[in-house]
Amino acid sequence: MADPLFGRVAIVGIGLIGSSIARKVRAQGLAGHIAIADANPDALAEAERLGLGDSYAASAADAARGADLIVSCVPVGAAGSVAEEFASVVTPETLITDTGSVKASVIRQMLPKLPYPSRFVAAHPVAGTENSGPSAGFAELFENRWCIVTPTEETDRRAIELVSAFWTGLGANVETMTPEHHDLVLAVTSHLPHLIAYNIVGTADDLEDVTQSEVIKFSAGGFRDFTRLAASDPTMWRDVFLHNREAVIEALGRFSEDLSALQRAIRWGEGDMLFDTFTRTRAIRRGIIDAGQEVDAPDFGRRPATRDGSAAEEKGEGNRRNAADRKQAR
Amino acid sequence: MADPLFGRVAIVGIGLIGSSIARKVRAQGLAGHIAIADANPDALAEAERLGLGDSYAASAADAARGADLIVSCVPVGAAGSVAEEFASVVTPETLITDTGSVKASVIRQMLPKLPYPSRFVAAHPVAGTENSGPSAGFAELFENRWCIVTPTEETDRRAIELVSAFWTGLGANVETMTPEHHDLVLAVTSHLPHLIAYNIVGTADDLEDVTQSEVIKFSAGGFRDFTRLAASDPTMWRDVFLHNREAVIEALGRFSEDLSALQRAIRWGEGDMLFDTFTRTRAIRRGIIDAGQEVDAPDFGRRPATRDGSAAEEKGEGNRRNAADRKQAR
Repeated sequence: MADPLFGRVAIVGIGLIGSSIARKVRAQGLAGHIAIADANPDALAEAERLGLGDSYAASAADAARGADLIVSCVPVGAAGSVAEEFASVVTPETLITDTGSVKASVIRQMLPKLPYPSRFVAAHPVAGTENSGPSAGFAELFENRWCIVTPTEETDRRAIELVSAFWTGLGANVETMTPEHHDLVLAVTSHLPHLIAYNIVGTADDLEDVTQSEVIKFSAGGFRDFTRLAASDPTMWRDVFLHNREAVIEALGRFSEDLSALQRAIRWGEGDMLFDTFTRTRAIRRGIIDAGQEVDAPDFGRRPATRDGSAAEEKGEGNRRNAADRKQAR
Repeated sequence: MADPLFGRVAIVGIGLIGSSIARKVRAQGLAGHIAIADANPDALAEAERLGLGDSYAASAADAARGADLIVSCVPVGAAGSVAEEFASVVTPETLITDTGSVKASVIRQMLPKLPYPSRFVAAHPVAGTENSGPSAGFAELFENRWCIVTPTEETDRRAIELVSAFWTGLGANVETMTPEHHDLVLAVTSHLPHLIAYNIVGTADDLEDVTQSEVIKFSAGGFRDFTRLAASDPTMWRDVFLHNREAVIEALGRFSEDLSALQRAIRWGEGDMLFDTFTRTRAIRRGIIDAGQEVDAPDFGRRPATRDGSAAEEKGEGNRRNAADRKQAR
């Protein structure tokens, strides 16, 4: 175990992301003391029960007092009010970062509240699951994922280095870009996919000719893949869409245009256009697998549940072959 | 092992579905002889190399001659021509079924070619992966999945029973409905999801402000979930959309309407509408998990790849807890 990077780390908001950070900070010995704050008493009690930190406080200021690093892990819409809460206890040495999925808005909300704005380094780990709350986190969440750091021109260079080192310590790869570019990229790789997933699941729930029981029974035809994203935390995602409005609406406009073109091709029986589109999209999955951001196993490596309820072992010829292919590809 | 249900089973088309059937028929001893046909010489040679059958033929008629059951596993657009190929060798006793993802069109294509139309029982196993070809199949593919049987008023009762028994023997649950209702249900649970997935991946590939490399690197934010369906076989899916045109366009119309409403809510900052929609969609995933059609593990149970390339073991507190929850739920 390395020397701790920080004496006291305050984690404000102990949901999926905050609790995953707490676990990994502990596992890696990145801090001498982990102070946890959450305004929700149930979440705080659960964090304490799970032993995620060394101290627990309802108030962000109490956790942040004396901290070398404050990590804000609250929904994007709460960024400003949380900064206001702990602003009174920060010193010129306190390093501040966050984990919000939208960056320009978070910076706009937080900077005016902070007495030493150059010490705030906005960041976003591109990782998560559909589960939420303190018990949903796990130490490996950030392993081999990307954390995007989005400093402004005013941000202190040494602060950027320390926050980057923190994320490297948590297992992530670090990339730096402007907040505005971050918001464009994530609109496409994260926000639009969630919106589409929520929408298609909502649409399927509302039909008259097809019952909900049919949707559930026959979901293995493809629909079930969308339900994972559509089970994500509603508060977090409401805030993301409200705070990255322009980029999401722009990406959605592109998506809808392209969908109209596909619909037209179906209506007019233009098989070649469909075939070309469906061929082109295969390459991207390969790229994502090669980049280590996806598993190289059919069906996400899902283990089908057998009738007795246990997970089936991978034993088919196809799976053996796929394992062999994976080895060869390395 | 039970007595074989059939003497000779002919599988016409040895892709993902045909080769999974061949493997399971063998494993369960459902047939005395497995005859495999594929017009593609490479696929046929691969099937032979894998030892999937007892005999191999380029022509559907050669495989089907003397068969007690013919299973057509070709893309939906080829249903009519394949029926024409083997029509000359069928007898009044030959049972015929298929596995196409669209049912009304397949029935329209095949029935006029068959000398004993009452012996044709259209069926559709709602199962698959994004991989294709003879080596992609595996015997467990249909385990605990649904196979929808869609007889018409002319279909022989005993034929329906035998085809249903065949699918039960392959591990599936059998449900019966009209071809038209099947096509409506699958438009929602399978065809629309594939179209949406192909479309969003295509959109992301076409942007100017966001590079393909960025889409790949930051795909763990949600985008990667869509790439699995968008890596599915282009020929198969082109045919599905061309042959279930009306139902797909109808489902797409609903989807687009609902998406416009979400877009409007984002534009006007209607957070409550977003929150309500995102809350409602959570329940459907729970239903799908409870119905045994999805795994109850975060992230589809994906094992994240660690830096050394091996799959990480599940060892986080969250994963332990989830395993405990699963046990309690039983």
